[in-house]
Amino acid sequence: MFRIIVPATSGNLGPGFDSLGIALNIYGHFVFEDSPSSDEKHLAVKAYQKALEWMDAKGPGIKVHTPQEIPMARGLGSSAACIVAGVLAAGHMSGKDVPKSELLQMATEIEGHPDNVAPALYGGLVSSGLRNGRAFSGKLALSEKLSFAVLIPDFHLSTAKSRSVLPKSISLSDATYNLSQQGLSISALANGDPELISHAFDDKLHQPYRFPLVDEAEKLIAIAKESGALAVTLSGAGPSLLLICKKGNELKSLIPRLSELRNTWELRICQADTQGALLL
Amino acid sequence: MFRIIVPATSGNLGPGFDSLGIALNIYGHFVFEDSPSSDEKHLAVKAYQKALEWMDAKGPGIKVHTPQEIPMARGLGSSAACIVAGVLAAGHMSGKDVPKSELLQMATEIEGHPDNVAPALYGGLVSSGLRNGRAFSGKLALSEKLSFAVLIPDFHLSTAKSRSVLPKSISLSDATYNLSQQGLSISALANGDPELISHAFDDKLHQPYRFPLVDEAEKLIAIAKESGALAVTLSGAGPSLLLICKKGNELKSLIPRLSELRNTWELRICQADTQGALLL
Repeated sequence: MFRIIVPATSGNLGPGFDSLGIALNIYGHFVFEDSPSSDEKHLAVKAYQKALEWMDAKGPGIKVHTPQEIPMARGLGSSAACIVAGVLAAGHMSGKDVPKSELLQMATEIEGHPDNVAPALYGGLVSSGLRNGRAFSGKLALSEKLSFAVLIPDFHLSTAKSRSVLPKSISLSDATYNLSQQGLSISALANGDPELISHAFDDKLHQPYRFPLVDEAEKLIAIAKESGALAVTLSGAGPSLLLICKKGNELKSLIPRLSELRNTWELRICQADTQGALLL
Repeated sequence: MFRIIVPATSGNLGPGFDSLGIALNIYGHFVFEDSPSSDEKHLAVKAYQKALEWMDAKGPGIKVHTPQEIPMARGLGSSAACIVAGVLAAGHMSGKDVPKSELLQMATEIEGHPDNVAPALYGGLVSSGLRNGRAFSGKLALSEKLSFAVLIPDFHLSTAKSRSVLPKSISLSDATYNLSQQGLSISALANGDPELISHAFDDKLHQPYRFPLVDEAEKLIAIAKESGALAVTLSGAGPSLLLICKKGNELKSLIPRLSELRNTWELRICQADTQGALLL
């Protein structure tokens, strides 16, 4: 029996669509136990079995239970966390010393893209992408002057629906706008520069199409900024929102204002997770 | 009389089209002298006068000569260097303590975009962009394990021509590919990771359209990589190429191979400039 903890992740950070993600100190706990018959419905077990196959390794049948979960279908990387837990478990049970880059490749193939599995595996602020089918990732500096928060609504939004509203083609100038905003946001996150953060998270590629799917998103973003958030982005494909704040700002004035909204939104103050998935 | 030195700059770094630029230790020297009549044909003087106007300041008539120049119309930021020199001279002669962000704004308005003026002013690796007409820039970390080189041909390529071949619209997947490549390249440049550098400078937005304007670019890139360059990008709008290398690799095997090409290409080994424009 062993336990793996995996951080929640927020992908598609503002301008960094399909590129930038961050791990947060909200954790899913996965308890793995030997079992004569595997619990094949659990995504972590599926990932475990698939990873063993790829490694050409044998491992025991396994059951998993999750005493603590990342909120599901909210854009916080809950399925990526299952996959990372399963792949890490397979690496452990195989008895081989599997490099993290190989775990990333396997997790990416199961998930389809590395946006969430990369920060879930490595922790911190991570850029990732596919090139010729191979997953790459690179850690980026993150200032200790910053803290984060997520706003989680009581409704779901499927990634498929959130994908379906995106345009197939865009103007070159919108693309280069996002490139410059992403470059600025990476600099601002490294230096913790509040002024630059407040000007460097604009996005023209996905959020303008997706915010309308999230009831009252624009109103909530305005309230969050009035309450001290430097920048607000959609978390992954939504519907949760990620707030970037100065450390020490606990957004106290935001909580009473959440009652102005039609839906129920939970505010969770958090920090970046810096270690990524861990086998305990 | 005073002297201003301004580094050459390489903009549009691979995937970082209209976003990432780097200052190199190849310098333009500008000697400014009081003069009853200004030499209004020189771009540095024009920028000087325009900046004085914007600052609502008075300065003497001025002449400029350039004992050392950055190669012109080669994609190495020679006009940006003139503009930065002029704006810096105006700040100096105005007697005001003008913040660099304001110098950047003035230089950007004269040049039309901040891609080259930002790294020329600040030095190092810089992301920059316009948002609602305002120029923003952010420094990015650059590993000391890296060195650079430029390959400068004996022919020109106008920025206008180089701009004219670009498509107006692109696929969303090409745009997100560039975003992830740019994120990876920023991580790779910060960490000096040779493996990641060799996989993180691919671009689908401008280089595929511009390389055909540069005679034998593809052949030269292949030769440069065979000689040890980790990545090769078009410098600005071309026609020069920027090579990213491990420090200590002086690309010795590249020089004899340049004779295989139809045009004359000059190889200049350089380092990043870390200080930006200086008034001496």
